[in-house]
Amino acid sequence: MSEDGFRIRRLCLIGVGLIGGSLSLALKQAGVVGHVVGHARNEDSLRKGIQRGLLDSYALDPADAVRGCDLVVVATPLGAIRPVFAAIAPHLSDGCVITDVGSAKATVVADARAELGAHFPRFVAGHPIAGTENSGVEAGFAELFRERKVILTPVAETDASAEARVSAMWRAAGAEVERMSVVHHDRVLAATSHLPHMLAFALVSHLSKMSDQDEIFEYAAGGFRDFTRIASSDPVMWRDVCLANGEALLELIEGFQHELQEVAEAIRQRDADALFEHFRSAKQTRDQLKHL
Amino acid sequence: MSEDGFRIRRLCLIGVGLIGGSLSLALKQAGVVGHVVGHARNEDSLRKGIQRGLLDSYALDPADAVRGCDLVVVATPLGAIRPVFAAIAPHLSDGCVITDVGSAKATVVADARAELGAHFPRFVAGHPIAGTENSGVEAGFAELFRERKVILTPVAETDASAEARVSAMWRAAGAEVERMSVVHHDRVLAATSHLPHMLAFALVSHLSKMSDQDEIFEYAAGGFRDFTRIASSDPVMWRDVCLANGEALLELIEGFQHELQEVAEAIRQRDADALFEHFRSAKQTRDQLKHL
Repeated sequence: MSEDGFRIRRLCLIGVGLIGGSLSLALKQAGVVGHVVGHARNEDSLRKGIQRGLLDSYALDPADAVRGCDLVVVATPLGAIRPVFAAIAPHLSDGCVITDVGSAKATVVADARAELGAHFPRFVAGHPIAGTENSGVEAGFAELFRERKVILTPVAETDASAEARVSAMWRAAGAEVERMSVVHHDRVLAATSHLPHMLAFALVSHLSKMSDQDEIFEYAAGGFRDFTRIASSDPVMWRDVCLANGEALLELIEGFQHELQEVAEAIRQRDADALFEHFRSAKQTRDQLKHL
Repeated sequence: MSEDGFRIRRLCLIGVGLIGGSLSLALKQAGVVGHVVGHARNEDSLRKGIQRGLLDSYALDPADAVRGCDLVVVATPLGAIRPVFAAIAPHLSDGCVITDVGSAKATVVADARAELGAHFPRFVAGHPIAGTENSGVEAGFAELFRERKVILTPVAETDASAEARVSAMWRAAGAEVERMSVVHHDRVLAATSHLPHMLAFALVSHLSKMSDQDEIFEYAAGGFRDFTRIASSDPVMWRDVCLANGEALLELIEGFQHELQEVAEAIRQRDADALFEHFRSAKQTRDQLKHL
């Protein structure tokens, strides 16, 4: 039990990838969870989840998985969340609290509203701002959320005690919990996460089409390595982020293209002052983020 | 003295920033250099160079700095190289070998051809594929070049023994030396270094103009941190790279913008298959570079 008396009797984890797996390991390490039952489409992942100690049992039918649980964490890619909600809604216990970990919140809240019926007030949308470029049941580790932020985006109907439970869960996992409106969350994340991922994927993709690509990658140094690491992220997750947060992302891509076009124009004009000022100002901004 | 008998009697280092400073420290650690004399525009940097042990002496006049040296390394930003060549050419000793460390080679070779006169055959253009986002005399460290590649781009007139000396110098500093044509070097580096830097600078610049920029940066996570670290690089260096390698860079920016536009179009059309395939293919390419 944690200091503030928070405890999960029976946790249902739907999806046992990097985020779900790490959360379970963190909660077990914190000693705040009794039994963890897993569900995923791939039974092999569930077996590995047991071997790695992040699950105590598993169920192939989501209805069986959620039965008798007091907390359900849906940690699948965004595109799988609505069918999961539809499958579990009729089988949720009274008072059960439901949350998710998706990187975009508007679609998830809409999916929950459409599918969870009377349970909707106990659904608390959440997003841990943490991750690595690795994915799958082997990728999780208990320390992933330590000192990282988790953003909750409750809506008008959201039950305060449900939000308090989800908040306590993340604090037990080592995270710092904040709240934000759904729209604001989706805009902030499009800027700091979704757009950078698009740029990294597009850069690798563009270079891979060049005639001398083998050699090009051979001479890539540290900056390139850091810059493109996130292009190793899960393609299903990123497809779903694009579909879920397309509007905010398109606006940012357009703004970025405009910025890059101005740089290209300065290069074409050999405008040394404009180039210097562009780099100086960006460096100044980035230097202020050294704590990152 | 190194195993193959390589030794620099008196090295002149023009520019004492990250690359020049690290090279001097590496050569001293390897025990292959007698005396290192520095020159830079900022005397304070030269004093710090002596304090940090990367210089044995310094000269405020480049003519004095090169006098009696058997090797001169020009480690200034690209835009300062031509005036340096002009200033030192009349004062170089017979047989002195000259090299540089610039990130683009066509302009440097043209500058050397224009200014070095009879010394041009002993100029060997070079580029260590190594660096950090830090700059200045405090940033250097002896291990920077270990197991990193250095590309030399000799031309038809280049003296083979001069090339052999520059190659031996970099091997003594721990690097692996390769050769490439000037044009090919500039294209490869535009792809793997210059374009990624443009994207990182442009991303930080674009986000810093958003109305909620403070909060945006507050929620930036690990991926963003790695992705934008290179936007802390020296603005003078990058201004000069843009001016020196503009043609190759513009071609790459254009290609990248086209690639990003295709992604934007797939998001707009909600084309799940095209998005998945784009991310899957980029991830596959990047995963093959895990050794980076």
